Amino acid sequence: MISKLIDKITEKNAPIVVGLDPNLKFVPEYLKQRAIEEKGETLEAAADAILAFNKAIVDATYDLIPAVKPQIAMYEQFGIPGLQAYKETVDYCHEKGLIVIGDVKRGDIGSTSESYAIAHLGEIKVGETSCRPFDEDFATVNPYLGTDGVKPFVDVCNRCDRGIFVLVKTSNPSSGEFQDRLMDGRPLYEHVADKVKEWGEGSMDGSYSNVGAVVGATYPEQGEIARKLMPHTYILVPGYGAQGGKAEDLKAFFNKDGLGAIVNSSRGIIAAYTKDPYKDKYDEKHFADASREAVKDMIEDINGAL
Amino acid sequence: MISKLIDKITEKNAPIVVGLDPNLKFVPEYLKQRAIEEKGETLEAAADAILAFNKAIVDATYDLIPAVKPQIAMYEQFGIPGLQAYKETVDYCHEKGLIVIGDVKRGDIGSTSESYAIAHLGEIKVGETSCRPFDEDFATVNPYLGTDGVKPFVDVCNRCDRGIFVLVKTSNPSSGEFQDRLMDGRPLYEHVADKVKEWGEGSMDGSYSNVGAVVGATYPEQGEIARKLMPHTYILVPGYGAQGGKAEDLKAFFNKDGLGAIVNSSRGIIAAYTKDPYKDKYDEKHFADASREAVKDMIEDINGAL
Repeated sequence: MISKLIDKITEKNAPIVVGLDPNLKFVPEYLKQRAIEEKGETLEAAADAILAFNKAIVDATYDLIPAVKPQIAMYEQFGIPGLQAYKETVDYCHEKGLIVIGDVKRGDIGSTSESYAIAHLGEIKVGETSCRPFDEDFATVNPYLGTDGVKPFVDVCNRCDRGIFVLVKTSNPSSGEFQDRLMDGRPLYEHVADKVKEWGEGSMDGSYSNVGAVVGATYPEQGEIARKLMPHTYILVPGYGAQGGKAEDLKAFFNKDGLGAIVNSSRGIIAAYTKDPYKDKYDEKHFADASREAVKDMIEDINGAL
Repeated sequence: MISKLIDKITEKNAPIVVGLDPNLKFVPEYLKQRAIEEKGETLEAAADAILAFNKAIVDATYDLIPAVKPQIAMYEQFGIPGLQAYKETVDYCHEKGLIVIGDVKRGDIGSTSESYAIAHLGEIKVGETSCRPFDEDFATVNPYLGTDGVKPFVDVCNRCDRGIFVLVKTSNPSSGEFQDRLMDGRPLYEHVADKVKEWGEGSMDGSYSNVGAVVGATYPEQGEIARKLMPHTYILVPGYGAQGGKAEDLKAFFNKDGLGAIVNSSRGIIAAYTKDPYKDKYDEKHFADASREAVKDMIEDINGAL
């Protein structure tokens, strides 16, 4: 699966992923009102509004980008209707030829992790029929429970040609609280990076492994170290833009082949119409056009710095 | 919310929680066949089968127990229909007067954790109407991202009188890989325990905090240490029974007041009809009766050891 992602990145010349995190406050009023008129003030209405929002952004950007990363929490907060919108978003993005990275950050003990892996990347038999529950291409995984929590994801990746990105060093301000604490003279995240490398050794797909890592753009020094510790690991890099990560800091996350990292922006793209320099040019009816311009600017910004 | 759980534990004289983790292989054939006849070999059929299975177990045990702990991965693996069955299980257990601990192990950066907290413990406004997406009473939370990943859960707990259990030392064989590594001479899980204590200080509800911890029954020595580090923290203890945790090991998790811990069993209860000493006495049509007897035995076993 990582080779498919790399092909798309190369084809579009865009090492970026658009985070489809449709917080209701980013969704234009007219979309919300239309949904509420149809479905009342219900979770179903919220779900309809975010799905319409997503589809417009995908329609306006899919030719420019290799992949999207829906953040499932933003859908789960609208209960079952929200998760239905998540699933429809995944399917819609697949129809448009996009790779879908499910940002689900799941992780549990062995048998339970297997169920999460099946839910997002695998298939399950009901009687004699195989069903694909959510059917993303990649999922993000939390490593706190150790190898037997991650291994079932790797097994499903190997069986179904899917991939994962394991949290190594997250982009948030307090990520260092545990992740930077020293163990035998090295921070926890470096030990996790060692494990990610090891977990991915049996999952090579071309020059890179289907087992990737997450390292935040907000921590370029740690990105450089992570890059060296895991030479064949693709790095998903959140935190560019709204969270403060800058293009010049991203170089550290890439290999000399120009590959090895894919940079996410969520709010910076999907809420572009509410932010400088787009908000004066686009009203809320043209939010998707603002997203398209923001994608072009992001690609130029990152390719310029690399 | 923790005071409500303690009241129920005291009323039933049962510091236990039944894990509703309906892996399809535990569900009797006749329930699966019935569902497949109605819905075909679909995720909907699987969801119908696990919901019928859960309801029968709840009907047979609700008068004996204070709480249930559905493991959401077991539902998520059946996609949207599975999550619908999860939600209906939560609602059904509430109708029966049970406290519901959603074993969701969510955790993300701040704004995203807030969405997970809203999804499971809080409410969200659509227009002027407040909606409760999943509406569990407690949720489990992963601490790897640090304070700003956990704080939004604590805030929602304080606002909506709900609770969380934060993973400290998990029950699985490889939990020590990161959790037992020494940082400044103390294992990571002890540092997490310190933080759990701190995170819960503003959430006291009687003698205990609404911010609890998860420590596996399979690690009684670590349980004793965790108990001392977090005197006002309720400990959710998985790993009893099928995973190897024994009643005599559980003493370490409790305080002198006889409170402070609640012990989970999943497979040992819900799949009792497939296991010794119940399988010779109960056929699959009477699986729920086997669960009832297993609950009684578990309560006797644990109360005997305390």
